Amino acid sequence: MAATLLKEQKDISAFVDSIDTFLLDCDGVIWAANHVFDGVQTVLDLLRSKGKRILFVTNNSTKSRKSYLKKFQSLDIHASAEEIFGSSYAAAYYIANVLKFPKDKSVYVIGMAGVREELESEGISHIEDDGTNLHAMDEMATIKPDPRVGAVLLGFDLNINYKKYAKAFTYLHADKNCHFLATNSDLTFPAGGTVYPGTGALLAALSAPLDREPVVLGKPHQPMLDVIIAKYHLDKARTCMVGDRLDTDIEFGKTGGLKTLLVMTGVTTEEALKKSSIQPDYYIASLGNLQP
Amino acid sequence: MAATLLKEQKDISAFVDSIDTFLLDCDGVIWAANHVFDGVQTVLDLLRSKGKRILFVTNNSTKSRKSYLKKFQSLDIHASAEEIFGSSYAAAYYIANVLKFPKDKSVYVIGMAGVREELESEGISHIEDDGTNLHAMDEMATIKPDPRVGAVLLGFDLNINYKKYAKAFTYLHADKNCHFLATNSDLTFPAGGTVYPGTGALLAALSAPLDREPVVLGKPHQPMLDVIIAKYHLDKARTCMVGDRLDTDIEFGKTGGLKTLLVMTGVTTEEALKKSSIQPDYYIASLGNLQP
Repeated sequence: MAATLLKEQKDISAFVDSIDTFLLDCDGVIWAANHVFDGVQTVLDLLRSKGKRILFVTNNSTKSRKSYLKKFQSLDIHASAEEIFGSSYAAAYYIANVLKFPKDKSVYVIGMAGVREELESEGISHIEDDGTNLHAMDEMATIKPDPRVGAVLLGFDLNINYKKYAKAFTYLHADKNCHFLATNSDLTFPAGGTVYPGTGALLAALSAPLDREPVVLGKPHQPMLDVIIAKYHLDKARTCMVGDRLDTDIEFGKTGGLKTLLVMTGVTTEEALKKSSIQPDYYIASLGNLQP
Repeated sequence: MAATLLKEQKDISAFVDSIDTFLLDCDGVIWAANHVFDGVQTVLDLLRSKGKRILFVTNNSTKSRKSYLKKFQSLDIHASAEEIFGSSYAAAYYIANVLKFPKDKSVYVIGMAGVREELESEGISHIEDDGTNLHAMDEMATIKPDPRVGAVLLGFDLNINYKKYAKAFTYLHADKNCHFLATNSDLTFPAGGTVYPGTGALLAALSAPLDREPVVLGKPHQPMLDVIIAKYHLDKARTCMVGDRLDTDIEFGKTGGLKTLLVMTGVTTEEALKKSSIQPDYYIASLGNLQP
């Protein structure tokens, strides 16, 4: 069914009344680079004043919730760390509460500060390598599986190297019971007007030689939604995913049985929306227009 | 058609008479780790004495032909650098003679000494990064495409890092005319009784975020065979690929229209051979038995 445009005041009010929780993508919805879209702060305040729960849902694994909050503060957007739900936190929550990871086990981490901080916030032991690499092929023999490792978690890592790949591979190849997790699978990320290889690219190097696929804790993969639903006990019928991308945000919400709202301030044009097989329930020019 | 076992003297002699050039895989055919199979040296000498051309065809990109020769010498196998045909050399030959790469252009290299040495042997200019990595996300902006780069060549690289990935991606993403090449696509390689992520794994991280596939200069990909045929002007009907793997060596030869001989000293068991849809023309217990 084609998406319904939210434009008339009464339609916007009726829509907002039907929703208790808004899951908001950030880039292309709240801001673009360092520009906050007009009216967004007003809408966030209005929704909160009506008792709506707001969660900022991001695939960015390099920052913890606390650290990501600084981005909001730098843009003068009111938010609290409790309203931020990143893929690193989703992974840590999943390991602690879904896997019920044994206390004597460790997670081998490929990733940056966001992953480490969120694992620590959930009290999960973790092991990682420094940036030093192997120097010769015969050092391969120095890679010995650490019996404490019960899971491998890969997030974006600017310091990825062969030693990390070889160790992560060794854990997952040698022990089929070792959990294989990734924060997200975005193949690229935007920066400086272009794109660069993202977590999904780094993940491809690890999953290609293994005959197994990771559990991915980012959009559009459902384990991230499972974690959000489990933590907040949300009523799916009264939860709306708001995003600017059809193949991640809207797909994520639709597969999960949520309501979905596409904003036209990001990557999706009206023409692309019309042509797509992925149709949100609603679309709106900007989140800033969602003023009930 | 099921493979024919070479066991009787007259069959072996008739087979050898029908072939001018033998393309020999090394690991599992000539040797296993540091053990040379019985009779192999005798067979190599016999074939040479009958005027047969021998080429050792290897996907290992970390060593140049000269450097790989040292492996033969260390195992007391008579061979010359001219008889060795590695994937790094195949890539260099392809760039020089098939692409007819302009002299004012450079190849951006992810790889080790083998790749560098073979590019130099063909007089091809190349650029690579040292092992230093990016330290912060905002250093991404320091990645500027070098206009001299007209091709990206990826081989196995123990010093792979994010900066190399980001640069290689930037060249290939920004310029669709920039050639995308890889020495081989083996997902793993054996070492110390286990396996580690191979060139194909590293390649996956680069090709996943691009909407293009590389030309691969290793078995079972045909560009490697095209290069061998072009260089030596071989008669395919009188050329035989000898290997221990059905999905690389035998597939390589069959797709290319060569005769194929499977040896049972490597990874393929008789039971696996019977079950496989890939059937070589002939099979033999060991290359050491090929005594006409």
